Order: sequence, then structure tokens, then C-alpha cells
Amino acid sequence: MIRFQCDYAEGAHPSILKKLEETNFDQTAGYGMDPYCDSARERIKKLCNNENVDVHFLVGGTQTNFTVISSVLRPYQGVIAAHTGHINVHETGAVEATGHKVLPILSEDGKITAAQVREMCNAHWDDADHEHMVQPGMVYISYPTENGTLYQKEELQALYDTCREFGLPLFLDGARLGYGLMSEASDLALEDIAKLTDVFYIGGTKVGALFGEAVVITKPELKRDFRYMIKRGGGMLAKGRLLGIQFDILFTEGLYFEISKHADDLAMRLKEAFVKKGYPLRYDSYTNQQFPILPDEHLDKLKEKYAYGFWEKIDDAHSAVRFCTSWATREEAVEELIRDIEAL
Amino acid sequence: MIRFQCDYAEGAHPSILKKLEETNFDQTAGYGMDPYCDSARERIKKLCNNENVDVHFLVGGTQTNFTVISSVLRPYQGVIAAHTGHINVHETGAVEATGHKVLPILSEDGKITAAQVREMCNAHWDDADHEHMVQPGMVYISYPTENGTLYQKEELQALYDTCREFGLPLFLDGARLGYGLMSEASDLALEDIAKLTDVFYIGGTKVGALFGEAVVITKPELKRDFRYMIKRGGGMLAKGRLLGIQFDILFTEGLYFEISKHADDLAMRLKEAFVKKGYPLRYDSYTNQQFPILPDEHLDKLKEKYAYGFWEKIDDAHSAVRFCTSWATREEAVEELIRDIEAL
Amino acid sequence: MIRFQCDYAEGAHPSILKKLEETNFDQTAGYGMDPYCDSARERIKKLCNNENVDVHFLVGGTQTNFTVISSVLRPYQGVIAAHTGHINVHETGAVEATGHKVLPILSEDGKITAAQVREMCNAHWDDADHEHMVQPGMVYISYPTENGTLYQKEELQALYDTCREFGLPLFLDGARLGYGLMSEASDLALEDIAKLTDVFYIGGTKVGALFGEAVVITKPELKRDFRYMIKRGGGMLAKGRLLGIQFDILFTEGLYFEISKHADDLAMRLKEAFVKKGYPLRYDSYTNQQFPILPDEHLDKLKEKYAYGFWEKIDDAHSAVRFCTSWATREEAVEELIRDIEAL
Amino acid sequence: MIRFQCDYAEGAHPSILKKLEETNFDQTAGYGMDPYCDSARERIKKLCNNENVDVHFLVGGTQTNFTVISSVLRPYQGVIAAHTGHINVHETGAVEATGHKVLPILSEDGKITAAQVREMCNAHWDDADHEHMVQPGMVYISYPTENGTLYQKEELQALYDTCREFGLPLFLDGARLGYGLMSEASDLALEDIAKLTDVFYIGGTKVGALFGEAVVITKPELKRDFRYMIKRGGGMLAKGRLLGIQFDILFTEGLYFEISKHADDLAMRLKEAFVKKGYPLRYDSYTNQQFPILPDEHLDKLKEKYAYGFWEKIDDAHSAVRFCTSWATREEAVEELIRDIEAL
Repeated sequence: MIRFQCDYAEGAHPSILKKLEETNFDQTAGYGMDPYCDSARERIKKLCNNENVDVHFLVGGTQTNFTVISSVLRPYQGVIAAHTGHINVHETGAVEATGHKVLPILSEDGKITAAQVREMCNAHWDDADHEHMVQPGMVYISYPTENGTLYQKEELQALYDTCREFGLPLFLDGARLGYGLMSEASDLALEDIAKLTDVFYIGGTKVGALFGEAVVITKPELKRDFRYMIKRGGGMLAKGRLLGIQFDILFTEGLYFEISKHADDLAMRLKEAFVKKGYPLRYDSYTNQQFPILPDEHLDKLKEKYAYGFWEKIDDAHSAVRFCTSWATREEAVEELIRDIEAL
Repeated sequence: MIRFQCDYAEGAHPSILKKLEETNFDQTAGYGMDPYCDSARERIKKLCNNENVDVHFLVGGTQTNFTVISSVLRPYQGVIAAHTGHINVHETGAVEATGHKVLPILSEDGKITAAQVREMCNAHWDDADHEHMVQPGMVYISYPTENGTLYQKEELQALYDTCREFGLPLFLDGARLGYGLMSEASDLALEDIAKLTDVFYIGGTKVGALFGEAVVITKPELKRDFRYMIKRGGGMLAKGRLLGIQFDILFTEGLYFEISKHADDLAMRLKEAFVKKGYPLRYDSYTNQQFPILPDEHLDKLKEKYAYGFWEKIDDAHSAVRFCTSWATREEAVEELIRDIEAL
Repeated sequence: MIRFQCDYAEGAHPSILKKLEETNFDQTAGYGMDPYCDSARERIKKLCNNENVDVHFLVGGTQTNFTVISSVLRPYQGVIAAHTGHINVHETGAVEATGHKVLPILSEDGKITAAQVREMCNAHWDDADHEHMVQPGMVYISYPTENGTLYQKEELQALYDTCREFGLPLFLDGARLGYGLMSEASDLALEDIAKLTDVFYIGGTKVGALFGEAVVITKPELKRDFRYMIKRGGGMLAKGRLLGIQFDILFTEGLYFEISKHADDLAMRLKEAFVKKGYPLRYDSYTNQQFPILPDEHLDKLKEKYAYGFWEKIDDAHSAVRFCTSWATREEAVEELIRDIEAL
Repeated sequence: MIRFQCDYAEGAHPSILKKLEETNFDQTAGYGMDPYCDSARERIKKLCNNENVDVHFLVGGTQTNFTVISSVLRPYQGVIAAHTGHINVHETGAVEATGHKVLPILSEDGKITAAQVREMCNAHWDDADHEHMVQPGMVYISYPTENGTLYQKEELQALYDTCREFGLPLFLDGARLGYGLMSEASDLALEDIAKLTDVFYIGGTKVGALFGEAVVITKPELKRDFRYMIKRGGGMLAKGRLLGIQFDILFTEGLYFEISKHADDLAMRLKEAFVKKGYPLRYDSYTNQQFPILPDEHLDKLKEKYAYGFWEKIDDAHSAVRFCTSWATREEAVEELIRDIEAL
């Protein structure tokens, strides 16, 4: 079985394992107060071109999302998100567990627009009964989205401007950030993300690390006491250096970007094969997740050899599915899949 | 200004005030452990034709909703509701504050169907990743709905059957229960409500009381330690007898039903006037809330003399609005309004 | 049975019932936006000698406590309180339900000192692992305390100064505020309370109202969006004017203070009788709650005719108990009790 | 600097790193549904001598504690714990964040007794106002405790029996379980722990793993839907196999027990050196944490070369401190420290 069903099927980039082994018997302070974390923080600050950001390391995405969101919001506020957003669908109510409503905006492709945010905010504040409703308190977006799509710089700028206008911190979930930044369709660099959001995170779990997400807080008001929030949410790893080591390696000599590009390139080859075969695409993704619509009988054939993710039924004979590449995907595996597709 | 904008613009039925005065210097135990509460409980049990239900008195509707819902659900479960349901829209996230997601079902008229509940449950359990999603844990409906509409007995029966099939307690918000039960379009009695739900409440605030909601728990598994939940949620009134006295009076000689019918009758006269005038109705309500669509210029005229609730913009020149009658609405006020409508 | 076991055994001061009746058919806006609430707010501001405070009306004490506390604290903060404080003992975890720990300070008589607060704060901030502990975020005191004791002005001043030094808002629970202010042992006026706290409430439930607590927010940073918090916590009464009317009456011509003094005076007569009889006092209270220690056989005798509260076992033959007077206590009842005590 | 200040200063046992490397490019399903987790589960079940327990892997201790506790309790219940318990002191209110109060029992040495639990439960249920107080809902103990002490089998049996009598699940925090089980003072095996608790966890983070805690649920009623709880709390590791691999290795050929014994043996040698030197012991620990009381001038000397944990000031010239050994502590480091102590 060759797995394309997700981007966390393997372990970590070998240089991470190597470094873990080399440093294994070093004795360090715990909880992220070690030199490896310090070094990783410095590298990230440099890439953000901003010495004043705060960088924190957490273990997983759901944890990172609820920790950031519950740190930002006042109790009666909610977080605006695409209805398809990870926090609204696939985190077993972790945000609600912290007492906050997700305020969903209908989205065709996983993205939301500045105009939609404006409309939701105006609807709230114009309503005579707004004190009876959850107040919009921040905006959550993901880059790339859960559908593989990307915000263009001007779209992100518009969102950020609208957020500032309404006093809403803008939070970007970058669980797959590398795959977004290195996409041929991206016009954003890490530095732009840092400029056009108030807090975001750089995903490690899906991009070469064993686990780990690096939160970057750019807005000064959001920095206060964030380590208390991490501890309270269960995200403060005792051996915090494991996170530092991983991000330190990932941001040494551009490894993070290099392995992300690898995944994107393979995904583009897959996409080309789907299109050539005449399969429609559920979303027009230029990142590592591809969502072709296949005849169910073709899928039956493919699943003998490949694992992919079921997305949704399109009609009686067709389904949208998800194929993911990752930093670990072998070129030969993609080529084999492409041959098998051509032969269907 | 004559107010039709809500059904809580006045105080209480005079016989309630009278009784409060008569009993004012009685000394009783607090927190609902007094003879007035006992008597009110007995009356409600009798009307439910079920001696085994538990009856509790709380102060307000939002409080009652979050107390019941957080008592029923396990932490990772959510409550299914119409997307227009009061808990989803107008309670400032009180349910989410208890850690639970509201799982919205799109609804045209405020009602949801057994088929929709089944579909949502099947979608959850059929999903390979269901542990990553909020599990449906109960169903919330309101009777009448926030749009004035009513479930027919067979619809409620179907919902109840589906809920049992999926192990979901069915909770009915009866903030306006009297106006529902006494509607000419209703085929349900209080006894039916008690049979076809697992927990529901009888609204006092909007139906003749100063305040107060009577929760009736019919499902034995939901009864345990409910008083702890009330106290924890701030709903245990120190002078609990105030609630007992009010419900005792309301259910003496059918007062609750009589004053509800009064409101419904007046609402039907209003409805007739709207229809005669040629105003379309946003929802086809047979209860005390009416939702006509009027030309904005007519509304401008009416608002010099009458208060009503704005509902939604229909087009550039028309708006849907809400006119409520209540137990306290004077016949003359309705007649005056009708004359003014006719004259528009 | 003559009840002395609590201060909420009766209804309300007759002038409140009278006003409720007079205004019963007035139509007003809901949720505290009515002229009665406005008038009551003005009266309270005047008594605080501060036009800039915000005044909000809630229904009960537990509700008020958790609403204020959860509005003030950030998620990882806790509230410092006497270990005997109402929020730590008698609210079924309502504060914890909002996600916050109560940080208890051991107290002999229900009071805490500035020095204790300082010690707790220093212990927190001096600890190398303070991010692993709940951060002190505010201070809760009650006036009078649950043991009937009172802070002297210089004690309150010292607490307030220490709170400011550590950036902790000081919250005063005034469920029995009247009985404190009118005590012969009090050197504080309402104006002082308003100056020496950041937020406090004036209890109505135990001092002449049917129900209701008036929150006064003096610290500007704590005012923002408090009405959302009230709604979310279930404390926004639909017929909010009921609260406005009650506080308006209570603060007309000093009624609140007059009826409080009545209770205190009767309590002092009771206290004198206990002392004369040779009963030790568990706490030296100059307010409406008295805590004598009686031989159990005397208590057995008294309980045939009087209801009182059991406090704690002192030894095999003696118990501390609580006798409360209130605005409603009849002079004759106290005299009868005193005679019966003398005759024991 | 030689570190004795905690038991998580190094990485992982080398055989774990080796296995991570060997399996690095295996493709597996995520979230703990892989063959490595299955294998680890089987090993743990065998050691528990019970095929019917459920085994789940989480990342860290705080996360495990709040996930288990919030899964067990109903909303109005609290968890009984020693006042020194980790959940009461060092988790930044993570339990309160889930809405539950920690009900502290005063403890001299980190242990609580069956009699204390009984007393607290009786006090609750005997109180006429128990509905106004947090209901005891479960008991939390740690083995070894935060003070290095151990429950004897008959003490644990008594606790378990008392818990069953009051219907309270008994939860054992085994963050340092290995160091407890392998202590010369222990009369318990893993099998006994499984029999005498309802849910417990086997700590990996402090006993040879990079991270990870293995929750074992023995009480059938507590098993339902636990994976939803893990996900909701942020504890479901995407690459779950990392946890499976680690526990699989730790429970192969008794590695977990062997490395735990190593730490205990070294701790006993340290203890002996402290005693020989005439240092009193703050707690009489037979596990990997030792708590000697030293003259401050001796500590000043030691800290030039060794890291240890400050525990508490004893008097003006003495302090209690904590020295930890671990699976990774080198014999030579302990010998060097002993020599330096002797030379003081």
C-alpha cells in the first residue's frame, strides 16, 4: 500500500533524527528554556525580518489553535472562520471547549474575503440586539486552506486591513505553511505573513518534523503571559528542546522550504496527470493536497494499491478524493501512481 | 407608543401580584424547597399526566437552556438545533460557554425534521474521522419556534423516534409554550409534550409571570443531581417560592392556557389584517408572533405610534418585521393597530 | 416556627410590591434599558458620589460573582479569596465552571489582610515555575463577610493599595452590604466602598428586595462590554425593569439603609442576650448574622420553636449556630426569642 | 553543570531513538491507529494481566490529567486530591479550565488516606446545603507522590474500597510510575495498580521516553468515547505511532523497569550520603526524588557545580531542596556528588 491519504504518514526528516541522537544526552532546562529553542527562535525571527516577534513551540495543531484563540478572545467573543475551517469541523469542539463560538462564514474553496468579514461585523454591530449575540473577536484563516487554496497577497492585505478596522486580531493557521509558501501560485514570503497577521503558526508536524508547531506573535498586546496559556492547555512539552531542535534544523539552510517545494512539485505532477486524464478538480489547488473527481470504478481500482482520502460524493458514479504529497513522498511513488492513472 | 415588539413589555398577571402580596411575610425555606413550589410541581405533574417527572424552577430562558444542555451532554458532544434556534443566535454563546458546540441544521421556518437529524447523525457516524468532530449528543427544538411556527404531533413523534434511535435526548424550549399549545393550529397538549420529549420547559416570563421557567424532566437518566446544575449556573433563586407562587397561580384554573389563548386570538386578528391588506407573511405563524412584510414607507408611518421588531430587509423597499401580542395585550390596542393598517 | 436561619425567608419590602403593582401595565423596553433602571442607576451613582461608575442589575449573588469574576480575569488567572469565602464554598463551583481557580487564603474570621495578599503574590512571582501555577488575577472579599465581620476603613485601604501595587482588581461582594454599612462597628459609607474597590455589588436579595444585585464598576478598564457578559451568564432579566424598580425604591429616601439598620439593631439585642446568658460567640459580629455557641441541649429546646442555621460542632456537647435577623424580622419575634433564651 | 534538578533533562533511551530511525519511513495511519500502538497496547495489557483494559497514548502529564478528569466528572463535580497534588499546584489551572474544582485534602507527605476521603465525602453528603457545594466526583492520587512517597498496598486497597463505597472513580497519576514500582519500599506491581484503580497512567516522559503517557482505563463505564476526549484536549498526536513505538520499546524485555531501578538505586546512594552527612530529610523518599535539608552555605557551594531544585525555606540558615535521579543519570555523576557532599 502506497499512502497518499495524508501528509503525516512518515516520521521526520533524517537530519532531525540525526540531531536528536547527537544531542540526546545533553542536559538542558525544560519547557522551552533551552539553547536549542533559543536558536530556533532566532532563525524564525530572522526569516520574519522582525526581532520583536515572540516565538513559542507547541506540539500539535488543534492544541495550538485552541491555545491561541482562547488567549486572544474575551469570554463573550467568537472567532470568525470559513465554515470549512479546521477549527469548525475537525477539532472535536476544542475551541468551544474553551468557551468560544466559531462564527462560520460560508466558503466555496476554504477562503474567506475581507468583504465577508466586514459584512459579518457590520451585521453584528448594526443589530439592536448585538449584546445578545456572540461578538466577533478575531479572524481565523488557514494558509493553505483545508482545500489546498491560497490567499493572494492583496487578499491577505485586504483581510488584515479590515481586521484592523474592526479591531480583530488576524490569526493564520499555517499547519501546512511550507506547502503554501513554496507553491508556484504563491506571492507571499514568510516575512509577508508576519507583516499581515497578528499571530500565526508554522507547521512542523506536516512538514518534516516528528511533531511541533511554531507560534509567532507579532501583535504586542497578544504576547502577555502566553506561556501560562500554553501550560494550561497542555502544550508545554517537558523536554521542550525536542521542539527547538526540530525547528532549528528545519530552518537551517532553508530545509523547510526545500522539502516543502519537493512536495508541491510532486503534487503539480499529479495534478497534471489528473487533468490530462480528464478528471475535474474539486478545488483548484497549487499545493500538496489535490482533490480530483474520479469515477468510482477508477477509485475502486486505485484503492487496491494506494491509500487516499475520501472527500465527498459528487454523484452516483463519481467521488471527490484527496491525494496528498509531503516532504517524504518518493518521486517513484508519484510516477507509479501517474502510470496507473493513465492506464485506467 | 404602543408596544408590539416583544412579549415581555409588561409585568405579570394581576393575580400573581396579588398572591405575592398575600404571602409576602410568610417565612419559608429558600431555594425552591417551600410549599408553593411543591404545589406548583404537583399541578404541573398532573397536567403532564405523569407523577414521575421532575419539575424545577429557574429564572430565565438563556439560563434554562444552558443549564439543561450542559447537564445532558458529555464534554465532546454538541447540541443539534435549527440554525435559527435561540441557543444558536441570541444567547451570546451561553451554550458554548459551557464547552459545547451548537450543531446547526439549516431551517426555512425555524423547524427541523427527523430526516435532517438522521442525516446529520449518519454523516457523523459514517465519517471515518468522526472522533475528530463534535459528536451529536442531543436535539434542541423550540415550540413554538422563534418564527412562530409549530411542530405537528406526527412531526414531533418522528423527531422523538429518531432521537431515541440515535440515543439523543430531545429537549424542547417552551419559552412561549402556552402560545403554541393554544394556537388554533396546534394538535398537541402539554401531556403530549411530556410524552414526546425527554426534557422541556414551560415558559413563564413571556406568558404572564414576572419571570420564571419550569423545567420538566421526563427521562429518568437526566434527573440526577439537577439541582447542583441549577446552583452552579446561577439559576437557583434564593427566594425560590417566588417561582413556585407564580407557576402555582398560572396553573390554577387554567389561567396559563386562558391568557395564552387571548394572545393567540389577537395575533390571528392581526394576521388577518395583514393578509387583507395584501402584505405577504415571512412565516406562516399561527401563534402570538406575526411576521408581515411591509413597504418601508408604511413602516415609517407605523413606527410613529407603534413599536415592533425589525426582522430583516427583503428588498430595497420592503422589510419583514415582527409584531407580538401577549397575555397583556389589550384588545383595543390591536383594534387601533388594525384600523391604522387599513388606513395606510 | 419562627425563622432566624437566613435573611431571605420573606418576600420584599411592601413599598416594592406596591410599586410593582402600580407599574405593572406600563410597557417598557426589556433587558435593563428602561426608565426605572435609569433612575435606580442615577440614585446609586449619587450615593457613590461618582457619576462615572457603571451600574448593572443582575438577579442573584452566585450569578453576579461568576459574571464579574469571569469578566475580569484572563484565562490562566485565579481569584484570591478567604478560604471561607462564598465563592470558594457555597456556589457549587460556579467560578471554576468559568475556568478559573479560587486561590484560597486561610482566614480565621472571614477576612483577609493586605499582608496575606502580598505574601501570596510574592510567592507566585518569586517562584521560578510561576508559569506552571495559576496567576493571581484579582481579589475577592465580602462585606460583611460570611462570618458577619467587617473590614475597617484602614484595612480596606491597605487591601486596595496592595491590589493596585500588584495590578489586581479588588472586587467586593456586598450581598449583605446594607447590614455592613449600618453596623455600629462600621466606619465605611457607600462612597468609601466605591472609592476603595474596582467593582462591587449592592445586595438586594437579602436586604429588602424580592431579588436582585446591583453591580457597580468603578475601574474604567472593567466596564467594556459587561452587558455581553451578563447575557452570556444568564443574568440579563427580560423584564429588567423589575430590578430597576426595586433598587429605585430601595434607594429612595434611604429605605435601604433604614431597613438594614433595623436588622442590625435587632441582631445586637440578640447578641447581648447571648452574651448575658454566657454563650461564647464563634465570631464577634456586629451585623445581622450572629454565631453563638450553645449547649446542644439548649439548642434542642430552641429548635422546637425557632429555625436557625447549624454552623459547626464545637465539642461533644456544644455547637456553633447562626441566627440571622433581616429587614423583615419582627421586633416581637426577637423579644420572644430573648425571653426563651433567658429561660433556658 | 551536572543536573539533578529534574528527571527530564535528557532525551530518550537510545533504543527508542534507534527504533524511531529504523521505522522512520514506514507509512502508517495516524492518531494511534497503527501497528506500533497496537503492539504497545498488547504489552501493557499483558503486564496488567487484563485483556479488557483500554490503553491510550497521550503526549504529556498535564494534558493527561485534565483529559482523564474532565472525562470522568459530571459538570458540578470536583476531584479530591492532596493539596500538594500536581493538579492542584503545578498545572496552571488546567483542571479548572475544564470547569472543575480541585477539592484539596491537607497532606504532610503527598499522600491522602481512605479516612480523609471518607471524612470529606461524609462532610459533603451530611451537609444540608450540599447542593450548594461542589460534589466529590473522583479521587486523584499520584504514585509516587510529588514528594517521592509511596502508597503501600493496603493503603491503596483501603482508598480503592472507600472510593467504591462512595461511587468515586480512583485515578492514579503515574508520571513517575516506574520509579515507584521499582523502589525497594514498594509492595505493588503494575498488575496491582491495574486492579486497585479505575484509571491510571504510565509515565513515559520522565522514564526513558522523549515524551508520552499511557492511560490505562480499567473501569468499563469510563471507556466510552475517550478518543473524542483526547482529540478535544489536543492530546491526539498526528503521528501517533511515535508514542506506540516508544512504549513498545519501553515494555520490551522489561526495559522500563530496568531503567527505573537504575534511577532508584542511585537515589538510594544519594540518600545514604545525605543521611550520613547528618542532613535531615524533608520527606522520607525511597524513589528517585530526594529532599534533603541543607545548610544554605553548603547549598551555595554545591550550586557552583550541580543543578538541583529549591523546595522550601526551613529556617534562616537551612533549605529543603530536591535532587532527582533518572533513567539517564550516570553513576559517576552521583559518585562525584557524593564525594562533594562528604567534603562539605
